[in-house]
Parts: sequence; structure tokens; C-alpha cells
Amino acid sequence: MDAVKGIVPPMATPLLDDDTLDLEGIENLIEHMINGGVNGIFILGTTGEGPSLSHTLRTALIRHVCERARGRVPILAGLIESSFKEAVVMAEAARESGVHAVVITPPFYFNIEQDELYGFVRQLIREISLPAYLYNNPALTGVYYEPETAARLLNLPEVLGIKDSSGNMVYFNQLLNLSGLPGVTFLVGPEQLLLESLSIGGTGGVPGGANLFPRWYVNIYDAAMKGDLEKARSYHEKVMKLSETVYSGKGYGSGNVINGIKYVLKAMNICNDYSARPLLKVSGEKAEMIDGFLNSVGNDNGE
Amino acid sequence: MDAVKGIVPPMATPLLDDDTLDLEGIENLIEHMINGGVNGIFILGTTGEGPSLSHTLRTALIRHVCERARGRVPILAGLIESSFKEAVVMAEAARESGVHAVVITPPFYFNIEQDELYGFVRQLIREISLPAYLYNNPALTGVYYEPETAARLLNLPEVLGIKDSSGNMVYFNQLLNLSGLPGVTFLVGPEQLLLESLSIGGTGGVPGGANLFPRWYVNIYDAAMKGDLEKARSYHEKVMKLSETVYSGKGYGSGNVINGIKYVLKAMNICNDYSARPLLKVSGEKAEMIDGFLNSVGNDNGE
Amino acid sequence: MDAVKGIVPPMATPLLDDDTLDLEGIENLIEHMINGGVNGIFILGTTGEGPSLSHTLRTALIRHVCERARGRVPILAGLIESSFKEAVVMAEAARESGVHAVVITPPFYFNIEQDELYGFVRQLIREISLPAYLYNNPALTGVYYEPETAARLLNLPEVLGIKDSSGNMVYFNQLLNLSGLPGVTFLVGPEQLLLESLSIGGTGGVPGGANLFPRWYVNIYDAAMKGDLEKARSYHEKVMKLSETVYSGKGYGSGNVINGIKYVLKAMNICNDYSARPLLKVSGEKAEMIDGFLNSVGNDNGE
Amino acid sequence: MDAVKGIVPPMATPLLDDDTLDLEGIENLIEHMINGGVNGIFILGTTGEGPSLSHTLRTALIRHVCERARGRVPILAGLIESSFKEAVVMAEAARESGVHAVVITPPFYFNIEQDELYGFVRQLIREISLPAYLYNNPALTGVYYEPETAARLLNLPEVLGIKDSSGNMVYFNQLLNLSGLPGVTFLVGPEQLLLESLSIGGTGGVPGGANLFPRWYVNIYDAAMKGDLEKARSYHEKVMKLSETVYSGKGYGSGNVINGIKYVLKAMNICNDYSARPLLKVSGEKAEMIDGFLNSVGNDNGE
Repeated sequence: MDAVKGIVPPMATPLLDDDTLDLEGIENLIEHMINGGVNGIFILGTTGEGPSLSHTLRTALIRHVCERARGRVPILAGLIESSFKEAVVMAEAARESGVHAVVITPPFYFNIEQDELYGFVRQLIREISLPAYLYNNPALTGVYYEPETAARLLNLPEVLGIKDSSGNMVYFNQLLNLSGLPGVTFLVGPEQLLLESLSIGGTGGVPGGANLFPRWYVNIYDAAMKGDLEKARSYHEKVMKLSETVYSGKGYGSGNVINGIKYVLKAMNICNDYSARPLLKVSGEKAEMIDGFLNSVGNDNGE
Repeated sequence: MDAVKGIVPPMATPLLDDDTLDLEGIENLIEHMINGGVNGIFILGTTGEGPSLSHTLRTALIRHVCERARGRVPILAGLIESSFKEAVVMAEAARESGVHAVVITPPFYFNIEQDELYGFVRQLIREISLPAYLYNNPALTGVYYEPETAARLLNLPEVLGIKDSSGNMVYFNQLLNLSGLPGVTFLVGPEQLLLESLSIGGTGGVPGGANLFPRWYVNIYDAAMKGDLEKARSYHEKVMKLSETVYSGKGYGSGNVINGIKYVLKAMNICNDYSARPLLKVSGEKAEMIDGFLNSVGNDNGE
Repeated sequence: MDAVKGIVPPMATPLLDDDTLDLEGIENLIEHMINGGVNGIFILGTTGEGPSLSHTLRTALIRHVCERARGRVPILAGLIESSFKEAVVMAEAARESGVHAVVITPPFYFNIEQDELYGFVRQLIREISLPAYLYNNPALTGVYYEPETAARLLNLPEVLGIKDSSGNMVYFNQLLNLSGLPGVTFLVGPEQLLLESLSIGGTGGVPGGANLFPRWYVNIYDAAMKGDLEKARSYHEKVMKLSETVYSGKGYGSGNVINGIKYVLKAMNICNDYSARPLLKVSGEKAEMIDGFLNSVGNDNGE
Repeated sequence: MDAVKGIVPPMATPLLDDDTLDLEGIENLIEHMINGGVNGIFILGTTGEGPSLSHTLRTALIRHVCERARGRVPILAGLIESSFKEAVVMAEAARESGVHAVVITPPFYFNIEQDELYGFVRQLIREISLPAYLYNNPALTGVYYEPETAARLLNLPEVLGIKDSSGNMVYFNQLLNLSGLPGVTFLVGPEQLLLESLSIGGTGGVPGGANLFPRWYVNIYDAAMKGDLEKARSYHEKVMKLSETVYSGKGYGSGNVINGIKYVLKAMNICNDYSARPLLKVSGEKAEMIDGFLNSVGNDNGE
């Protein structure tokens, strides 16, 4: 299987309440993103509130998404698990439903060391039957895939690439400069860094905003690949404005990104705006700020 | 139900591998602690590797421990969950097995705010049928129960107390000085702070070392309650030596505490020394250091 | 020279503006603290805004304080310097004025390692002609005196003790359990921890609040030494109330402690309430909270 | 005065010991950088060990550098001061010697808030007679110029630009997207990020490695400005190799950058390798790694 390149949105999870899927919303959102030209869909990541959902619900979500996507784009499923055994079980459910690859986050309760991280992920890859991506998100998991650890794992034939949400571009540069990794993909998390990561050799991104305006991000990627820096920058500026309003609040990585995305999804009539506990809905002042942003955007969806 | 006071060990979880309980070890360990005079047993906490175990295994552990303990001491069960729904399901399993109370850790993936924390825990207490303790461990969960949030929750009749593993004694003092909380218990996590917490009004502790030498900790508690500071200090010094060897490595809160405890449990023929992934066994140099410590202790188990 | 034990207030620095001493205020404050029974005075520490003052002003302050104190209590002077050379020069000025000992903070710009810290402090002690105390304040300097480093330095005959403002009582316990350090003094910084540090073997404290109510802190120390825990706790509770109002705002270690102390010093007609830049004066809501606290205290100064 | 664009090395400070300048080394280093085509020289920054030097030595350094540079490139001088008064005095010394602008770091002892930061810097700009740049380095100072604070200061006519060493490219993007700041320059600190910062609109950099191979960095800048991405990337890869060897050790921002630069400067016969306390010289393994790197570079100085 080839590693995915381009734009792979971390799909938000439409919910009716903490333990009930919004099935119609799921279908709408999938169509919206595929129509926007995305190159894959990543479910049950941070933006997908994976860790907040019961394992039963996660399994149901995987099945529904695979059914609705009908193979038009590859589906990647997050394994954000503190328990090794739960990760194995979830990976098997993903395989049965037709997921293309899993995305492995370090176990995130204990403050672990690199040998513990390597041992966990190496064994997990042995015990599952799907290709894997690594997912680096130290602000939430408390541990980095240090470059040496990343290199050892990225050299395994089962590992297709890495998604880096650290926001640390010195680190991302170090990954890109790891030697002997042909075919591996390097996807950047924070969408504010999409353009610059592509300019130094990154191969794609996992931008939360591609739930909302997928074509903007696809345009940045396509323009950067063609060397049309002016076009790429014009969409980069839209993304900066989106991030400063829709994600505003208490810092990237917290629930502000998620509740902002859900607020806009509701405004677009795509799905409900419910976030699973502990996250809360967007409140007054931020709602107004987002409304203002959406007004300024108008019909400019990048088509 | 009365709030527990005194020494409540966070029971280590004897394992044969990542997903198999060491049933004989569990029985041995329970008898060892109860014979040592402990005032309760806390299972599925950090030391119990709760987050590393599958939910099926956690449920089995709860049942086995309740059966073996036979009501001789109250059993407290940790709810260290990132998913609200999983927490509710686990609490119901705990109730069915005869657990006396649950111990609620904040959801630990997202970096959440106090209103999100309060909403999660408040609703959880509504939906479950057991009394609850709060468990503050910001180094692992990324969020504090700020004094004001703690006060609101500790005022609920269902909430019996708080276990604080922050190691921040300014904070612990603030908790003790919250007004209007009769009958609430204040348990300190780090055993190096047990004596001093009792000297300023704390009502007990959750020391990992009480898996190993339960009577030492019971002696500190009893001596402090009687005002026999000299005796209390003599056992405090033993605890300091234990912590500097058995827990050595990479800092409190990481796997060093757990793998050190398991190493000693095996040396005492109580149970296996396997820790669930991602944690690793004690390695060479630390093993020698612990052996030296155990030699120096000899038969001094505090009886 | 004997190491100081008991209560050593970190004297606030009365100022008319950023570079002018309030000489009358200095005299008032010294008399106020000595009348309150303190065992020494520590100038140019964090509470004394040492790093905010020009070296010329620091030299003038040292001279004035030594003259006014007239040898009634030992004077300790902080060396909070990022430059080795400046530290040497300041120590010489201190010696000339009659200071009894200097208090050495790690250099605080670079993120340094233990060997760099040890080399800096070891050489500084060689080049100066006064006894020294170590001052551990990692929240502000970014580096700990790790127990092993502290032990090496505390074994030097020129080093009389350590002041620990980390607030980490596990660490403070480790210091107390260092072996072979007769005569060394262990002073705790945060006054909320004064009572408990004394209960486990600490030998004194450096409480900011002793600028205001010196007798309260002296009473805690004296009562704890005599084993009168009830009396000690009654003053501990006053200290907790003081710290929750006078130091409120943005966390211990920031300017809230300092501007709160200066606000009360002005209310007591001891000196001006000016803090050197970058610190700001107490603002509206906090001022009201402190006024309420002072009303509740009335004339209860601990005599 | 126009804001500087392009490559402005943070000049290392050649020293014979903690308080003696290496005057010949200073002259050599200035010629080396100017011959390499740099657009300015920034002295007394982090790489220049500003905070480790006495104020007398800093003043002497400023004078020597201005004399030797003879106006061929603008000289910028760092004000890394915890004391407002010392900053004012140092700025006056800089003006007298012919420095073109000062570079203002936040006061770095107390953990300060934005209003305290703004007040300090705003008043400093009022009291000095030179244009200013802001210098953001939160890892060492403990405080950010938050975008709103930066915007207020960058709008002052006396403020020419900002140097950002945070390594946080989301933040750097936010700065670039601040509105209404014509003529302001945005210089990036970490040289690993030079290329990508230029690709999104940055106007220059302050790379430590430009003490060693100034032409490499000038080539990146010139190539990026002409849109020759291929040439820019080829020098970017050299810079990544330099940073992974010369700066290896304990993380950017610590002394590893500085002692690595000094080791190479000595190998190039430009100056001594002494670093002021607390920093230490390069030790065995790192020395070998750097030797290997220098061998691989050979005569490739970018000309």
C-alpha cells in the first residue's frame, strides 16, 4: 500500500450525545470532504474526539465511515489508547471494517521513556494486520517520538509515515532529514504550518479546517506542488484567519479547535454541534467572532 | 458511608502478561496488606496500572479483589478514564462487585479547563450509584482540581474526600483550609510527604510502599495520631530510604515507582514482577540498588 | 560563623522610584522586623527585588541596612546575578559593609546543567571572602540544585545552609536526609510550608510575610521547637489567610507576593508601595481583599 | 533609519577569561562575517553571552565592535537586563559608541504578565535615544511577547522589528499576519527555520552559524528572495547538518549552541574557545562529532 500524500482531514465525529452517533451528520460530512477533493480521511484522531468515546461507539463509527466512504478515499483510524490490549482489539475492528491503516499515538497516561515507547509501538505493529502511521502529539501525550525512535519505526515496512502535531518545525526538519526512508510520508498537523512544511519537503497535512473548507487546503497543497507560491499564500492567509477565530480560546490542542469546528459544521447544516464530555460548546463571544469570520468568507469555498 | 482515614495502599496489579491476572499473586498481596493493618485498599489507580489494562481485565480484577478481601477493609476502585461513557460502565461494574467507592481522576487526554473538569465529574457523580473520592494527579492528567473546583465537588454529599498526588503542599494546605467540609478526608499521595501532611491536619495517605511494608506506614499514621513524633520520624526515615532506592530512575509518577514495587513484590514471593506495556521491568543497576536496600531492611517489617 | 536558624525575613526594598531608595522606610522596616523578634534579615532576595535594581543601588542598600541594623541581627545579602564577575564585585561590596553572609542563586538566563551550576558556584565561593548560603528557586532560575549538587556544596566549610523556595517538599525531605552535614541549616521559602518543614526537621524559614507580622512567624518557630503544636497551628492558619489574600493573583513567585507585601507596608505606614519595573502596584479588587484581611486581623500582631 | 533585512549574525564574544576580551579574536570575527556578506551584526545577544558579562565588559565590547566595523554594516546591541535602570545605562553607552539600534529582551527573573512586560518595554523606549528591535525568547526569559503586545510595540515609530527565537512557527505566522505594520522586519532566530520563515514572508534571520559560515546563510536568503528554491534547499541541508553536530547536546537555547560555535571558531583560528561561566567548553565526544562535520565540509564556505 502506498503512503497517503496531500490533504487528509482529521474528521470531526458528529454526535447526538456522549454515546450516540449523528449518522446523517456523518454522511453529510464525508460527502462534503470528498467533494472538496481530499486525499484521505483520518477518523478517531484528536479532532475526532477519539479518546472521549466508548470503544463500542468507536467501533460503530469505523464501520459507518467505511460504509459511507465506499472506497473513494483511504480511511485511516486513530489508535489513541492507554491500554495495549484495547489498541489491539480496536485495530482488529478497524481491519474488519475495511480501514486502510491505523495511526498510532503513544500511550498517554504515564510519563514514559523512549525505550518504553518503542517497545509498545513495535509490539503493537507486530500484533496487528494493518499498515500504520505514527502520530506525534507531545502536548497531549506527554512524550515525543524522538528522531532516533521515529527513524527505527519508520524503517519498518509496515510503517507508512508520520503525522507530526508538535508544532515544532525544528523537529519536523529533523524528520525530513532522516536518511534512507524512501516512500515515507511526512504529514504536518497544525494547519498554520501547512504551507511552510510543504516548502521544505513535507508531503501533506492533517488540517482540522479541512472539515469545513476542504478545497482551501487542497488548493494550498496543489499550488505548492506546482510552485505557484502566490496562490498558495492567498489560501494560507485564509487559513490563518480561520485559525485565529474558529480555534480561538485557550491554545491549540485543547478543545477550542474541536468546538470551533463543530460550531461551523452546524452553521453549515452539516451536523450537530455536540462535543463529548469533557468538552463544552462554543460560548457567546467566540460564537460572534466565528459568525463574523463566516460572513467575511461568504461563498468563497475555494472552488 | 464514612470516609476512609489512615493508610490505603494503591494496590499493584499482579499480572502474568498484558491481559492475564496473576490470581494467586492477587490473593497473596491482599493478605499481606490486610495483615499489615491497612485501613482500605485502592485498586486500579496509577500504581495499579489502571489505564494500561483492558476494561474486561479491570472488571475481572475488581471482582477478584472484592471476593478475596471479604469485606475486611473497604475497597476503592479508580476511574482513570478519558471517556465519560467508559467511566459510567466501569462504575456500574464496581458497584455490582461490592466496591465501596470510586476514585475519580480527571479525563486525561485533552488539556481541559476547570469548567470542563467540573462538568465531567459533576455529571459522572450524578450517573453512578457509589460514593466518590477525587484524585488529583496533575503531572499525569495535565489538569488540577483547583481549590475552588475541589470545594464545589467536596461539598456534594456523594463525595467523601480527595487524594492529592500533586506533591504540592501549598495546594494541600489550601485544601485543608477550605471551610465547611466536615467529615471529608484528605489523603496524601507521595509517601515522602505522609508524615508532614499528618502534622498539619491530613487524615491519611495512599502510599505505594504499603504494598511492601504496610506496617511501616500504619506505624507512621498511628504514631502521628498519638503525637509520638519520634516514632513517626523513625519510620519516615525508612520510607525515605525506600523511596530513594525502590522508586529511583526517572522521577515520581513514571513507571519507576511501579516497576520498583513489582521487583520487591517478586523478591518477597508475593507475585510476579510483570508490568503491563508500556512499562518495563527493573534493570541491572537499579535491581542491585534495591537488593542492597532489602538487605539493609532485613526482617524489620515494623511489627 | 554559626548558621542562622529561625525566622529570617526576605526584606522588601522600600523605593521612591526605580532607582531611589526610601531611606526612612528602610529604617522603619528594619525596626519593625527586629522588634518582632526575627533571627536575621535577608536583603536583595526575590522579595527584595534584587534583580530589578541597579548594582549601584544594591550597593547603597547593603550599606544602609548594615548601618541601621547595627549588628543586632545578622544580615544576609542575595547574589542573584547572571554574570559571574558582577557576583564577585557585589560580594566584595557586601563584605565591606559588614554583611554576614551571601545567598547564592544559580545564574538565571541560560538553561544550565548541574556541572555548569556546580562550577559557577564552587568558583564563586573560592573568590569571595564571606560565608555563603545556597538559594534554590527553580521556578525563577530554571535550574535546581539537585540533591547531589547541593550535598557537594553544603559539605564546603564556607557554606552554612540552603534556602529552598521550590515548594517541593519531597525535595526538601531529600535535603534533610543528606548525610554528614552537621551544623548546616535548612530554611524553607514558602511560608505556607513553614510549620510542616519544621515538623520534619527544618531549621527555619524565610517568610515574606515576616516583613508584615514578624511575630506570627517567630511564634510558629518557637512553638514548633517547644512541641506546642496547637499554638503553632493557630499561627499557621493566620499565615494561610494572609497568603490567600496578600499574595493572591498569579501564583507564588511572581510579583503578586511583592506588590501585596508593599501594599500592606504602606497601609502600616512603614514605607512607600512602589515596586521597581517590571512589577506593578496592587490594583482594585486585590486591594479590597487585602483591606478586608487587615480589618479581620485588627491589632493581632502576635505579641 | 531603515529596518535591517537579511542575515544578521548574533556575534559570539571572543574572551580570554570571564572578564577579559580577546581583542584580536573580535577583529578577526568581524572581518570574517563582513567578508561573508552579512547585512548587520547583533552583539550581546544570547549567543554573545550578554547576560554572563559584567556591564563594564559589555560597554568595552560595544566600543570595540563599533570601531572595528567602521560603519560597513549596522551594529545592533542586545539589552538583556533584569534591571530597568541598567538597561537605560547600557543603551546610553551603546548610543555613544555608534550602535544603530538596541534589541530588547523582556526582563527575565520574575514570571511577569503582559501588562508588566508592556510597561517595562514602553517606558524603556521612551527613555533611550536609539531605535529598537524586540527580542522574543520565551524559553530563556519565561515570557512571550504575545501577538497583541507585540503589535502595540511594533506600531511605535521607534520600533523597527522583532527577532523571534521561540521556534514556534504558528506564533511567527501570527506576527507576519499582524496588520498595518509597513516597514517592520521579522527576523527568525533558529537557523533550522530560516528557509521556511522566508518562504512565508519572513524578512531575515539571526543565525548563530553565520559566525562560522556566513555565506551559507546569505545564500539561503538571496536564493529565497530570487525564488531559487533548489539552491536555497541545498544550503538549508548544510545548515541542518551543522545544527545537528555543532549544537548537539542538551537542546537549543542552552550553552550547546554557544560552546559549539566557539569550538569551531577556534578550529578556524578566528578566536579562543573560552565561554564565560556558567558555560563549559565542548567535551570529548561532541568535539569528535564536530571534527567529523568540519572534515565533511572541507573548503565549502559557500563562495
